[in-house]
Amino acid sequence: MSVIIDSHAHLVAPPAFYGYRANLLASGGYYKGSPGISDDALAASAANNVKIMDSVGTDIQLLCPRPFHQMHSAKPEQVVHWWIEANNDLIARTVAMHPSRFAGVAGLPVCAGRPVTEALPELNRAVNDLGFVGVSLNPDPNEGIGHGPGLDDEYWYPLWEAMVDLDVPALIHSSGCFNGRESYSEHFVTEESIAILTLLRGEVFQKFPGLRIIVSHGGGSVPYQIGRWQAEVLSPGLGGDPNSTRFEVQLRQLYFDTVLHWPLALELLFKTVGPDRCLFGTEKPGSGSAINPETGRGFDDLKPVIEAMDFLTAEDREAIFENNARLVFPRLKIGG
Amino acid sequence: MSVIIDSHAHLVAPPAFYGYRANLLASGGYYKGSPGISDDALAASAANNVKIMDSVGTDIQLLCPRPFHQMHSAKPEQVVHWWIEANNDLIARTVAMHPSRFAGVAGLPVCAGRPVTEALPELNRAVNDLGFVGVSLNPDPNEGIGHGPGLDDEYWYPLWEAMVDLDVPALIHSSGCFNGRESYSEHFVTEESIAILTLLRGEVFQKFPGLRIIVSHGGGSVPYQIGRWQAEVLSPGLGGDPNSTRFEVQLRQLYFDTVLHWPLALELLFKTVGPDRCLFGTEKPGSGSAINPETGRGFDDLKPVIEAMDFLTAEDREAIFENNARLVFPRLKIGG
Amino acid sequence: MSVIIDSHAHLVAPPAFYGYRANLLASGGYYKGSPGISDDALAASAANNVKIMDSVGTDIQLLCPRPFHQMHSAKPEQVVHWWIEANNDLIARTVAMHPSRFAGVAGLPVCAGRPVTEALPELNRAVNDLGFVGVSLNPDPNEGIGHGPGLDDEYWYPLWEAMVDLDVPALIHSSGCFNGRESYSEHFVTEESIAILTLLRGEVFQKFPGLRIIVSHGGGSVPYQIGRWQAEVLSPGLGGDPNSTRFEVQLRQLYFDTVLHWPLALELLFKTVGPDRCLFGTEKPGSGSAINPETGRGFDDLKPVIEAMDFLTAEDREAIFENNARLVFPRLKIGG
Amino acid sequence: MSVIIDSHAHLVAPPAFYGYRANLLASGGYYKGSPGISDDALAASAANNVKIMDSVGTDIQLLCPRPFHQMHSAKPEQVVHWWIEANNDLIARTVAMHPSRFAGVAGLPVCAGRPVTEALPELNRAVNDLGFVGVSLNPDPNEGIGHGPGLDDEYWYPLWEAMVDLDVPALIHSSGCFNGRESYSEHFVTEESIAILTLLRGEVFQKFPGLRIIVSHGGGSVPYQIGRWQAEVLSPGLGGDPNSTRFEVQLRQLYFDTVLHWPLALELLFKTVGPDRCLFGTEKPGSGSAINPETGRGFDDLKPVIEAMDFLTAEDREAIFENNARLVFPRLKIGG
Amino acid sequence: MSVIIDSHAHLVAPPAFYGYRANLLASGGYYKGSPGISDDALAASAANNVKIMDSVGTDIQLLCPRPFHQMHSAKPEQVVHWWIEANNDLIARTVAMHPSRFAGVAGLPVCAGRPVTEALPELNRAVNDLGFVGVSLNPDPNEGIGHGPGLDDEYWYPLWEAMVDLDVPALIHSSGCFNGRESYSEHFVTEESIAILTLLRGEVFQKFPGLRIIVSHGGGSVPYQIGRWQAEVLSPGLGGDPNSTRFEVQLRQLYFDTVLHWPLALELLFKTVGPDRCLFGTEKPGSGSAINPETGRGFDDLKPVIEAMDFLTAEDREAIFENNARLVFPRLKIGG
Amino acid sequence: MSVIIDSHAHLVAPPAFYGYRANLLASGGYYKGSPGISDDALAASAANNVKIMDSVGTDIQLLCPRPFHQMHSAKPEQVVHWWIEANNDLIARTVAMHPSRFAGVAGLPVCAGRPVTEALPELNRAVNDLGFVGVSLNPDPNEGIGHGPGLDDEYWYPLWEAMVDLDVPALIHSSGCFNGRESYSEHFVTEESIAILTLLRGEVFQKFPGLRIIVSHGGGSVPYQIGRWQAEVLSPGLGGDPNSTRFEVQLRQLYFDTVLHWPLALELLFKTVGPDRCLFGTEKPGSGSAINPETGRGFDDLKPVIEAMDFLTAEDREAIFENNARLVFPRLKIGG
Repeated sequence: MSVIIDSHAHLVAPPAFYGYRANLLASGGYYKGSPGISDDALAASAANNVKIMDSVGTDIQLLCPRPFHQMHSAKPEQVVHWWIEANNDLIARTVAMHPSRFAGVAGLPVCAGRPVTEALPELNRAVNDLGFVGVSLNPDPNEGIGHGPGLDDEYWYPLWEAMVDLDVPALIHSSGCFNGRESYSEHFVTEESIAILTLLRGEVFQKFPGLRIIVSHGGGSVPYQIGRWQAEVLSPGLGGDPNSTRFEVQLRQLYFDTVLHWPLALELLFKTVGPDRCLFGTEKPGSGSAINPETGRGFDDLKPVIEAMDFLTAEDREAIFENNARLVFPRLKIGG
Repeated sequence: MSVIIDSHAHLVAPPAFYGYRANLLASGGYYKGSPGISDDALAASAANNVKIMDSVGTDIQLLCPRPFHQMHSAKPEQVVHWWIEANNDLIARTVAMHPSRFAGVAGLPVCAGRPVTEALPELNRAVNDLGFVGVSLNPDPNEGIGHGPGLDDEYWYPLWEAMVDLDVPALIHSSGCFNGRESYSEHFVTEESIAILTLLRGEVFQKFPGLRIIVSHGGGSVPYQIGRWQAEVLSPGLGGDPNSTRFEVQLRQLYFDTVLHWPLALELLFKTVGPDRCLFGTEKPGSGSAINPETGRGFDDLKPVIEAMDFLTAEDREAIFENNARLVFPRLKIGG
Repeated sequence: MSVIIDSHAHLVAPPAFYGYRANLLASGGYYKGSPGISDDALAASAANNVKIMDSVGTDIQLLCPRPFHQMHSAKPEQVVHWWIEANNDLIARTVAMHPSRFAGVAGLPVCAGRPVTEALPELNRAVNDLGFVGVSLNPDPNEGIGHGPGLDDEYWYPLWEAMVDLDVPALIHSSGCFNGRESYSEHFVTEESIAILTLLRGEVFQKFPGLRIIVSHGGGSVPYQIGRWQAEVLSPGLGGDPNSTRFEVQLRQLYFDTVLHWPLALELLFKTVGPDRCLFGTEKPGSGSAINPETGRGFDDLKPVIEAMDFLTAEDREAIFENNARLVFPRLKIGG
Repeated sequence: MSVIIDSHAHLVAPPAFYGYRANLLASGGYYKGSPGISDDALAASAANNVKIMDSVGTDIQLLCPRPFHQMHSAKPEQVVHWWIEANNDLIARTVAMHPSRFAGVAGLPVCAGRPVTEALPELNRAVNDLGFVGVSLNPDPNEGIGHGPGLDDEYWYPLWEAMVDLDVPALIHSSGCFNGRESYSEHFVTEESIAILTLLRGEVFQKFPGLRIIVSHGGGSVPYQIGRWQAEVLSPGLGGDPNSTRFEVQLRQLYFDTVLHWPLALELLFKTVGPDRCLFGTEKPGSGSAINPETGRGFDDLKPVIEAMDFLTAEDREAIFENNARLVFPRLKIGG
Repeated sequence: MSVIIDSHAHLVAPPAFYGYRANLLASGGYYKGSPGISDDALAASAANNVKIMDSVGTDIQLLCPRPFHQMHSAKPEQVVHWWIEANNDLIARTVAMHPSRFAGVAGLPVCAGRPVTEALPELNRAVNDLGFVGVSLNPDPNEGIGHGPGLDDEYWYPLWEAMVDLDVPALIHSSGCFNGRESYSEHFVTEESIAILTLLRGEVFQKFPGLRIIVSHGGGSVPYQIGRWQAEVLSPGLGGDPNSTRFEVQLRQLYFDTVLHWPLALELLFKTVGPDRCLFGTEKPGSGSAINPETGRGFDDLKPVIEAMDFLTAEDREAIFENNARLVFPRLKIGG
Repeated sequence: MSVIIDSHAHLVAPPAFYGYRANLLASGGYYKGSPGISDDALAASAANNVKIMDSVGTDIQLLCPRPFHQMHSAKPEQVVHWWIEANNDLIARTVAMHPSRFAGVAGLPVCAGRPVTEALPELNRAVNDLGFVGVSLNPDPNEGIGHGPGLDDEYWYPLWEAMVDLDVPALIHSSGCFNGRESYSEHFVTEESIAILTLLRGEVFQKFPGLRIIVSHGGGSVPYQIGRWQAEVLSPGLGGDPNSTRFEVQLRQLYFDTVLHWPLALELLFKTVGPDRCLFGTEKPGSGSAINPETGRGFDDLKPVIEAMDFLTAEDREAIFENNARLVFPRLKIGG
């Protein structure tokens, strides 16, 4: 039986931690200060998380910062660095409290309008010093305002190189959204779709064959809209070529998590990209934790949903629940 | 047996028509000129379209302007008016050539940064003078640059009111995209998703109960990501309320077309929103016209795909192919 | 002997309250949510404040929101309204816990780039519903970026009119500063100086003779630089007139608090503007709470400093400690 | 008895000189032309200045350009260079007419948005060719609009290095102000305060130990507001450290002039920063030349004010009137 | 024999007058001050001008402000008002000194980005109080930066209406130019061309039949490039119509001055627009005052050039030298 | 008798070619596609052009892209490259169809805001691979919006160098205009004037003595306004010098075409710059093709106009019609 690894989970910190974030923003970068979260306060949060995991049968959570709080577009950028470092520190302290239940996935201080190389020292610190096993990557540091380089742009190459060297994957997950048209949650889906299509349009996987990318929330809109892209890559009038690699083949260069709270969508995902490209993820507690009145369980209680899917083999389920995660996150050693 | 009505189709015009568009842009609005498309040239285009319809069993197409050419953000806005009017004129001429096979769905000169009321004269002309049965509506006249009002904003109310008065529906379909991160085609999906979520967040359907909106391409990402929004509307921590109307119920205030070229996606759509909210559409010839190497047919040859779906009843299919369109477009009289 | 009234004090809230501020900012205005501060948590903060007051002999504190957290330039402006209202609510709850020790001075949601009239409903709520006795006014809602109207501009007239009608004074105090050249604390001084000079340049006190304005931190730079302005108003070459009202007379249309932590500066203030224009204020706990190594007391322990000043009469001291505050804040009834 | 050296004085030029400035601005940088100030016209201005000096007992004035006319933000920047050079030339001609009464302090063409290195050729010309003994430095070349680098920024390092090499000090004095909230004169005070706090926050004096900086107008607001900064540097919650060097010690790395026209302010200055850090300055004729109705003398007639201060020793007065200036301006040789 | 009226001449003011302009700009609008030009200084300038007129046989000059100094784009706009008023005042004083030799043509404070109506009080003052006979109009108050409304725009209608009511003409003459591509002098020509073509494109002369417009410098490029516009108005492909009023006829709705310093150009002008549309003008002393090495006379000594033209009749010459000016400036009474 | 060479003529392409331009713009640079102009369609256009040439006696046309369609300011700049290349390709195909009647003058992808060096590969391709004999150069790639470097700026030096190396001249001709004040056609004249004055102001011809520049449309306004510039270069008060090279001598460093449709203007041009600097050009079919009602011939039928000018010698005419073109375009070999 599989170890159940939830590849998409977030730090649950005491509310005062976000008071620190407010201080950083209000001070305009003049004072760094300190979050001041005591061990007791943190331990209470962590224990609560473990309790939630136990209630749904999750063995291990990979924790990254709460995405919509990452504020990659905040200025001056120094506050972003301070804040992301504080997040990674708090994750590391949480992991240290429950080393068999949690592992760290680092936030990265990729700041709007700044070279991605400025995030690399924190990447190295997180992996080498704090023992993190992956990173969370916001493909839109402008947070919905401004038009930064797509993931196929050379802007990102130094990050890809560093990730390959460190043998860690990235979970694609945008942060806030301030364009007044989408909530941050809606922007997550937009950016996941853009990330996939941009990566496949470019030469990233050709240049960085060791790169591993997981797209959150079942890949945004792409598995659902796949017919559109299948036709496009074959259609000369739309910039395609009848001899191109089929889109569904290209798509399998990526990984996807299962943070979709609708069984039909999960089914479409598995059948479209293949169970071998999917990692169990629930983001619990989070976007899906409301109780579904029809089932009496949280929308994000996905383990029984997946277990009930007839079309999956036992091997498929093991891949989804554990084995794919172990392949994608080779630095994850616990629970094995 | 149903009359097959394709609710999502576009004007196929001679290439020189787009030369007129180029002239308008290049002249900076100084000269209006004329498209200069002869009856012969137009007849050849129209005949070709009819031939394509016949090849896949479509009886009627509802024609609107080619979306990505609408240039709603072009300046000065006068050129947008001239161009959209020229499109509607050409559609009207095409309809007049094959009155039993085509009906017109009007482009609207909703210009970036201008009041929506400036588009109403053309709306009235299209319906009252040209006999059009619906409109095509770009929810993002800024074309990916700039952050205009969402569809829940009062900005749009005069249009909703006029549409209700005229008893015509709108097909939501964005135009170009110039943010450098998404192609226009990818932006279609983004904007369809934003349109749905924004409309449901606001009070549009409460204030305009007679309003009918069809969302292109199977509703962008929303039916696939529905679990996310089902949970959100019930979750106080995310701005929701456990006593809210369920999201899947809210969603059924809208209509969707079937311009998805992936059978699994069509299945998800029908099962998620219900066959009574779906209108047959293929956008043929268009985004899905490439030949699927596995089937030897166009990706957009959707009639046999739908006919083969066991879980649909005969009544469902009639609704999808014809009856829903007749309800949504009551001004469509032909073929009945 | 006087009741000691500290006219310049700030809400001391649990850190999680600022976590709520972070949530508001991160969500981009999509969710209002709630601060979620329990009575217990708030009571602990309030009790601590009372203890600090007792330690320095303060009888009454007039509490307003912590200034640098007011975020008047945040967008969308809805979050500013929500946040300021939450501050005023928390102050009201604190006052209710110690009604003989605290009174409320309201924050105002004057938002950058928006009419001041949009802040008036909260002003009325604070005074009429919550029983507040004055307001805290940020003369620079742009928070150091952008150049909004000076206090002499007609922009502010509706506020002056409402304040006069409600018989409440304003404490001038800027909020954050994001120009990268000054810290918010340095910007306080800049804006206090600008506020004084702008008010005196304009016709505000002529048009609103009942208006009462207190300038924080001893009036910024103005009492110290007064010679410069005395000369200017008399000098034709600098826009002045030898027959003008002397500047030191004009200056006495305003009030000043004593939040200066340097005895020589306090002395200059009293001698320059007169004890009858000065209100005791310490902002404790706050900017001056560090221990002065020379005295072993906080820099902000100003009561003994003032009591030791020989040049002040007993009447002067009573004015400073209590009577001026009672004149300026006529709605303050406690302790009398 | 001391030689009375006024360290803060400005070129008094014939009005037509500013007509040249108007020409430069109006021509948009197309024509350089020439100021066309005759020796006779200049001699008349200079003689008048000497007469004023004699009337108040000033022996030597250090002349720099009239600050608010420096136009460091004018575009194209070529006109700034031409204009500042013309000022320095006119100062040099004035000095040549009265070599025992005047010495030159150079304006610098530090242009908004341009590297400070572009001002170094004129610095070298002024010191090496024209015999100037110091420079006047505007810390805000953006003139109140835009947010340039603070004086602690590396942007300014090449200037500090050149000044140390040439052994000349800088008098901090901003130029115009176009933000619509402050007059240029008010902005002087703002910028002097920012200059002090920014310099002390950074590492400028550590990296350039030979650097000498004089802050105009008695240091803006800082000596008056010193308690605020004393507390801050000791307060961890405000970015300070209880073991920091006391602020009043840090402050004595700078020099201050006495251009305060209020005796109480002068007293506060001397007692707060020490007479050994103060240089006699009057800016006469200038901001303080109006007649004080109470004394019948100009506000800027400061020599008798200082002579009447009992708390100053004879040595203090000699330092203020002459000796500090000789230490700070070692290139000043006259009158010794 | 004709009275020689130079319709295009500029105030010659003492250089210190432009020092006042510099003061206004430097002070950012805080101080109005006064130009301080004495009667003696002005009389010297005026006498010199009369001497120049006598040297070339000019009887009367119509004086307007020196154009490139008008600074219509300066901010805050208050300084433009002060400056233009000061110009008109100085012109009025000059006229009063030589009432038989000069008449006034008013500068107008049409400020960039402000309604033209704000210039009307000064227009009325100039005509009704100061006795001016016309206005000088800058069609580009943005001075080469920014794209304001063309002269055919409704923006200008209130000015046209007021001019017709007052029965005064406008001399079109732009001011400075700050786009870095053209000198102000080159921009004069650009704007004169734009003014003509824009006026003829619109409906200005249809709506304001009493309007009289004189275009400086022989009409910019238009008489020379007339063939281009003759063809355009007749060419459907370029927005024209074969039945349009011929361009050369349209062009004669305007008047032109003779400030062209090249005899061949003057000849082309007279032959192209007709002598009855041309007003003698020299702008002397000004752009053409350099000595032509071939003739030994100023380029702007145009009277003998015109007198030598055989193809002109005596009547033509009288029209050019005097009669046209009397028709266009009916308020000009002197010399008749 | 001369071979009649029309040095200023434009590609006449089928309207569908501009449909390709519209596609490029609408797609935002995502798809390159292909113009899809068949040989038959192109041959028809070319044959029509030859017929027009025959009708007016033109032997050879030098074809460059239709200027106002060049869209040098379009973004992303990739579409400009694709479009200009497509133009040059179509010109090359046209030349290949009638090698004795046409030669190619290349469009250049000089993109707004990008280094001119990015246009050099296409320059080399056009000359070396396609056999073109010159280039068409837009001096304002910003197309009326934005203020790019003048032709005297070092920005352009790499182009001048490459042109000299390849021994090809440039025809100065701007493209579109989007400032809302000028039509593109009016902007041509503006930019030609700026080009001349900027080139003569700088050091271009000193640094690149082999450079050859032809200014379209008879040199904009410059030959007509020459008196203004003759005076300026000699006038110290306007930045000139009495010992300068006379302007009319400087002007003869340039060449001019005869695309003026007004005989008086042609006469002025020949007499002002000399017949040896003028190249026959008609731009036919184009701006002057409307029929002149007075002559019954096209305004652009200039051959008989020039032939009828008495003041020209036979040698002059040969120079204008043929010999000057052969000197300026040494790579032009046909017809000789």
